Amino acid sequence: MCEEDFIMQLLEDRILKNGKVFPGNVLKVDSFLNHQIDVNLLDEIGKEVKKLFNDSNITKVLTIEASGIGVGCMVARHFNCPLLFAKKSKTLNIKGDVYTSKVESFTHQCTYDIILSKDFLNETDTVLIVDDFLAKGNALLGLIDIVNQAGATLAGCSIAIEKGYQGGGDKLREKGIRVESMAIVDEMDDNTGKIVFRK
Amino acid sequence: MCEEDFIMQLLEDRILKNGKVFPGNVLKVDSFLNHQIDVNLLDEIGKEVKKLFNDSNITKVLTIEASGIGVGCMVARHFNCPLLFAKKSKTLNIKGDVYTSKVESFTHQCTYDIILSKDFLNETDTVLIVDDFLAKGNALLGLIDIVNQAGATLAGCSIAIEKGYQGGGDKLREKGIRVESMAIVDEMDDNTGKIVFRK
Repeated sequence: MCEEDFIMQLLEDRILKNGKVFPGNVLKVDSFLNHQIDVNLLDEIGKEVKKLFNDSNITKVLTIEASGIGVGCMVARHFNCPLLFAKKSKTLNIKGDVYTSKVESFTHQCTYDIILSKDFLNETDTVLIVDDFLAKGNALLGLIDIVNQAGATLAGCSIAIEKGYQGGGDKLREKGIRVESMAIVDEMDDNTGKIVFRK
Repeated sequence: MCEEDFIMQLLEDRILKNGKVFPGNVLKVDSFLNHQIDVNLLDEIGKEVKKLFNDSNITKVLTIEASGIGVGCMVARHFNCPLLFAKKSKTLNIKGDVYTSKVESFTHQCTYDIILSKDFLNETDTVLIVDDFLAKGNALLGLIDIVNQAGATLAGCSIAIEKGYQGGGDKLREKGIRVESMAIVDEMDDNTGKIVFRK
């Protein structure tokens, strides 16, 4: 088994063991990813992401608050570079020079602004975007918009769990953006709890 | 120089170099602590906190979203235990069994509820509470309330930067709670930018 297969298997096994499927396409993984965090699992993900983007000369890892911060930290650690996290704001209160973009939330059924200080990202940077989940891809589109506003280079996106059936990841790939997900869920059944991963 | 002095000096030097003092007792450290995160600095803090609480048999590190998650991850990593983060909610929407507490925010001048699933904390746990900042101590009081509701043992609190002049840390210490801060700011002057640390 190669290293990439190892982390994918580790995460898939964990999703099968501790993930819970609820009606409305909800996959709850809050026992290890986004309420209680298994830092050792995130560190394994960080190691793997480093291997995948080793030749990209990443200068900044970018995520979005709150649940992206954990995996973002553990990824940034392996690149020996800072983690930036965009802040969410329902009421746009601009203090100083910031990049902003709008994100439509599938989970919370609302639109919010994301904000990043211009102090921390510019055209000399090469950025890796990281998040815990990828569904419709709206949060990633907002972060990509911010990378473009900064004139920075986007190396790609790395995600812990992609919900393949929601199509966001494949839409980004069709645009030529590199998206690497550690596990891709292609089917879920909230009656049986069955979860099918992409091979 | 002993190790604890080393990390305190490292953090104090960084605050003096990159921190900005604003009117209203605001110390902005968003270039390395809570917007852009220096993961190597947080890792040094994690190492030091592990030494301080090495004999406490910590089973869970507990923090609060969003900016506590970074330092929380890097601390939990050294204890080889999970990180829990309490979620903030302005409208209490209870799904399943949760511990809740109310927190008054000095920064945002509002009161919000914090929520933690009962699945992740119980009377068998020994908890270390971690946060990036300590001012009035209201967030810590909310987290301590949740630890008490769970019947868990509180080992203490560990903070990156304590604003000593706001008194929250000393109030907790007077109650017999162990509070270890990596840097304590006792005076700030927004006219001169001068920052005085506790010895």
